[in-house]
Amino acid sequence: MNWKKWKHITKLDPDRKFDKEMINTVIKSGTDAIMVSGTQNVTLQKVKELLNALKGSSIPIVIEPSSPDSVVYEADYLFVPIVLNASDGEWITGKHAEWVRKNYEDFNKFEKIFNEVIFEGYIVLNPNSAVARVTKSKCDLDEKSVASYAFVGERMMKLPVIYIEYSGTYGNPEVVKEVKKVLKFSRLFYGGGIDCREKALEMLKFADTIVVGNVIYEKGLNAFLETIP
Amino acid sequence: MNWKKWKHITKLDPDRKFDKEMINTVIKSGTDAIMVSGTQNVTLQKVKELLNALKGSSIPIVIEPSSPDSVVYEADYLFVPIVLNASDGEWITGKHAEWVRKNYEDFNKFEKIFNEVIFEGYIVLNPNSAVARVTKSKCDLDEKSVASYAFVGERMMKLPVIYIEYSGTYGNPEVVKEVKKVLKFSRLFYGGGIDCREKALEMLKFADTIVVGNVIYEKGLNAFLETIP
Repeated sequence: MNWKKWKHITKLDPDRKFDKEMINTVIKSGTDAIMVSGTQNVTLQKVKELLNALKGSSIPIVIEPSSPDSVVYEADYLFVPIVLNASDGEWITGKHAEWVRKNYEDFNKFEKIFNEVIFEGYIVLNPNSAVARVTKSKCDLDEKSVASYAFVGERMMKLPVIYIEYSGTYGNPEVVKEVKKVLKFSRLFYGGGIDCREKALEMLKFADTIVVGNVIYEKGLNAFLETIP
Repeated sequence: MNWKKWKHITKLDPDRKFDKEMINTVIKSGTDAIMVSGTQNVTLQKVKELLNALKGSSIPIVIEPSSPDSVVYEADYLFVPIVLNASDGEWITGKHAEWVRKNYEDFNKFEKIFNEVIFEGYIVLNPNSAVARVTKSKCDLDEKSVASYAFVGERMMKLPVIYIEYSGTYGNPEVVKEVKKVLKFSRLFYGGGIDCREKALEMLKFADTIVVGNVIYEKGLNAFLETIP
């Protein structure tokens, strides 16, 4: 299945503990893809351990690196975030240029990888989240300001994904609704605080894809299974 | 003539004095376009005065605004800068989102304008220039690091122009050469310190387009005429 048809992505954090039961439940849950991603304490070693545990399943695996140092090229997809509302330019273009620079000596090979990357235009909206603090995101935005960032991501930067990220808290559906109105071709992802069926369905009214993860660590596998549409 | 064929652009600063002789000389010089642009003390009033003086000539006029407050829509082209190596995210996406937000109430009209904007991926390399200070640009970059930013501008953001800006000083041709190597479809602009024929021709070995301006204010019209290829 083409990634543009995914409705439900499960985000697993390499920094959290996992076991066989958890991995098996996620794989059989009906989720469309598994994204390996985290903001803090992500090391190559931890990413590879989680990837190893996922090996052999038929579900698409996405790597979403948080810095040029934690990029792993062994998954089906590489989704690379750009934080559109970051005050710190490092998270919009700086880290990305650093990543290119690191791969300069083997440019032809890197160019092929880069051409297949899916770039995600994040808009980070929970000021208390690790990602907001690290990137110094401007979170104090009204609905139309969020939609304006989305428009910039889609029309100015031609990004195929706009990602509304409330990481850790459940966001305002009106914001997601407003963003959906201005988008023409980008897929709209929503992530943050989805821990039951009701919230999953509410956000899916406006978002094309929901990203669910913390519920596994915080409420357990049964609550997670409820979020599958 | 399509803007992609321009080899020589004359940049005029609305904050500087001009007179009829200067305007006439520029119009008849053989330059391919006139860009109205400046970083400091640019007001709508000053931009309009300069545009008025240019009225009636057959040469294409480009507006290059320095903030959402100084956008004028009366020229042939609107070129909007994005400072790829800014540390301050305002100059990569923030001001642009602010511009969209300002125009939210008349969205359909604005969308049409936005679709025709040429977005320029600036890489600002003179740390002592006003633009470097305002945008907090990271200027301490080796040739390959500059080319890495250019690659990000072209491949990640799909920008039609990459603009190497040494504003006020003449830059390193090796940097421009390295950038040219990595670009596939973006036009490569070079600006900064071109005040004679030799420098114009040297940069045109690698850049598709040179942008010339300060020479008029600093060395006079004869020196400017020498820069036309």
